[in-house]
Amino acid sequence: MKKNVAIGIDIGGTNTVFGIVDKQGKFLAEGKMKTRDYGEIEVFLAALNEKVRLALRSLNEKVHVEGIGIGAPMGNINKGTIEYAADLPWKGIIPLADLFREYTDLPIIVTNDANAAAIGEMIYGGAKGMKNFVVITLGTGLGSGFVVNGELLYGADGFAGEIGHTSIRPGESNRQCACGRKGCLETYVSATGIKRTVFKLLGDMIDESELRDMSFNELTAADISAAAKKGDKVALAAFEHTGKMLGYKLADVVAHTNPEAIFLFGGLTLSGDLIFEPTRRHMEQNLLSIYRGKVKLLPSKLNTQNAAVLGASALVWNHKENHKDGV
Amino acid sequence: MKKNVAIGIDIGGTNTVFGIVDKQGKFLAEGKMKTRDYGEIEVFLAALNEKVRLALRSLNEKVHVEGIGIGAPMGNINKGTIEYAADLPWKGIIPLADLFREYTDLPIIVTNDANAAAIGEMIYGGAKGMKNFVVITLGTGLGSGFVVNGELLYGADGFAGEIGHTSIRPGESNRQCACGRKGCLETYVSATGIKRTVFKLLGDMIDESELRDMSFNELTAADISAAAKKGDKVALAAFEHTGKMLGYKLADVVAHTNPEAIFLFGGLTLSGDLIFEPTRRHMEQNLLSIYRGKVKLLPSKLNTQNAAVLGASALVWNHKENHKDGV
Repeated sequence: MKKNVAIGIDIGGTNTVFGIVDKQGKFLAEGKMKTRDYGEIEVFLAALNEKVRLALRSLNEKVHVEGIGIGAPMGNINKGTIEYAADLPWKGIIPLADLFREYTDLPIIVTNDANAAAIGEMIYGGAKGMKNFVVITLGTGLGSGFVVNGELLYGADGFAGEIGHTSIRPGESNRQCACGRKGCLETYVSATGIKRTVFKLLGDMIDESELRDMSFNELTAADISAAAKKGDKVALAAFEHTGKMLGYKLADVVAHTNPEAIFLFGGLTLSGDLIFEPTRRHMEQNLLSIYRGKVKLLPSKLNTQNAAVLGASALVWNHKENHKDGV
Repeated sequence: MKKNVAIGIDIGGTNTVFGIVDKQGKFLAEGKMKTRDYGEIEVFLAALNEKVRLALRSLNEKVHVEGIGIGAPMGNINKGTIEYAADLPWKGIIPLADLFREYTDLPIIVTNDANAAAIGEMIYGGAKGMKNFVVITLGTGLGSGFVVNGELLYGADGFAGEIGHTSIRPGESNRQCACGRKGCLETYVSATGIKRTVFKLLGDMIDESELRDMSFNELTAADISAAAKKGDKVALAAFEHTGKMLGYKLADVVAHTNPEAIFLFGGLTLSGDLIFEPTRRHMEQNLLSIYRGKVKLLPSKLNTQNAAVLGASALVWNHKENHKDGV
């Protein structure tokens, strides 16, 4: 008998990762490619399709593919599109599902990458059994997925959950965002955001810092974390500022939706308390008393690389469940 | 045959209003009392019970009361409590439903006054048929009720929808809030908030203004609206600032929950375009492109005084519907 599997694909600003995943969340195969290497969406999809095809052929067991779940920034569940994604190389409205249908007749489900991560957290991670929680993904940008009353929150147009593009203060900030505006949260809180903060602090502060030897293009979030762990004052101040901005905006998330927990997901969260402690402190400071001490701020329980792919694959099972009585 | 009715009660910072309402939303009787006249909750409830009893006795037809729905700031659906309501005279946690049970064996449902207004808007107002919308109530304070996927959003602890107590910038603002913190949205956007703005502007600006003849305690939002309509520069600047703060924070609401519409409700909205135009403009300026021009900003379609009471009464029918198979 053939094993039923789903293909999960996570399209990120830097990497695109995919997996062939069974219903228990086991990866039979996985693969990766650089999103930024493909300026044209059609070329990207041809390459992706080829990689997935080879991965399927390499399997030791016979499988039946149930569908393809895709998580992508600004992915729209209703239309199968990616619309004006600031962190991807393809601009405007990309009819992703339609373009991918050139290669397959399988069901294709597209959603926000952070929504996919939230489904992954709910089915396989730390949010098992929770009805109200939020997942914040910290990568090149900042994404968010809201689960309320046990369901993903899509909103009227399928675009709920874009806290990365809320502004940190009324009126303009100096930080330009890839979305064309200024002062968006993700210009402060993301792998890129903390790097921008470091460079501004290197201008403001006079403390010695090993970060003074690195160019903007060289510096990574991992370098900032390593420096902070050694007590580097600039790096520590950058984490404090990042936590201040994130905590401030998470307090709004709590006041709007009163979740049981907020999960932080992505490379930046590997810095542990460097990011969690200031975020939690500033979140609590900005909370109304009825919420204080009640909302758990937790690291994602899923392997950073796999969660979004797991979530994307879970979209397929979820879709099948909802359509089993249909055509 | 007796007519089935519900009792709807709206407890506000200034007034408490109640109605005896049938399932079609028709008021058979209504009444009002000053919330601030009662420093003790027990005395307040005794007086309220007496007023409702007299109203019931005054009816021309025989009725069967199905239950009591109460909307109140910080009303908690799960526990029947009011918890730390900044704008009410009673502090701490008030076991409202338990205290009211001294007078009646009827079902008592307590929720946030803005949640009650949202239910009223959904059943009897401009949100008929909408699955995703938000109601913002502008009174002594600022409340909010979120409907997502066709249901009221209560969150993990029953306290979702408190955008009045989100902060307008990271770190402290100068405006003290009754909740004990500083810089909450309702210190800018509410009948009281716009008055505070006027007084700060009277200090900043040198323009002649009829508002310079009124004391803080004399001035009402209606005075500010009347002055603005005559072109008073201070009053116009106050509306502009109020709209800026509200529009900025509504953009966050859109990025979190992507509603089809946002309804503004309460006395301040009677100022019409004075408040709607700057709010809409600043909201749009703060929105990511995918949301722009799509979210309707509308005045509540319900009579200002009645909507919260209607919503509170609708809690009863809703409760009955959900429990008809139970004990």
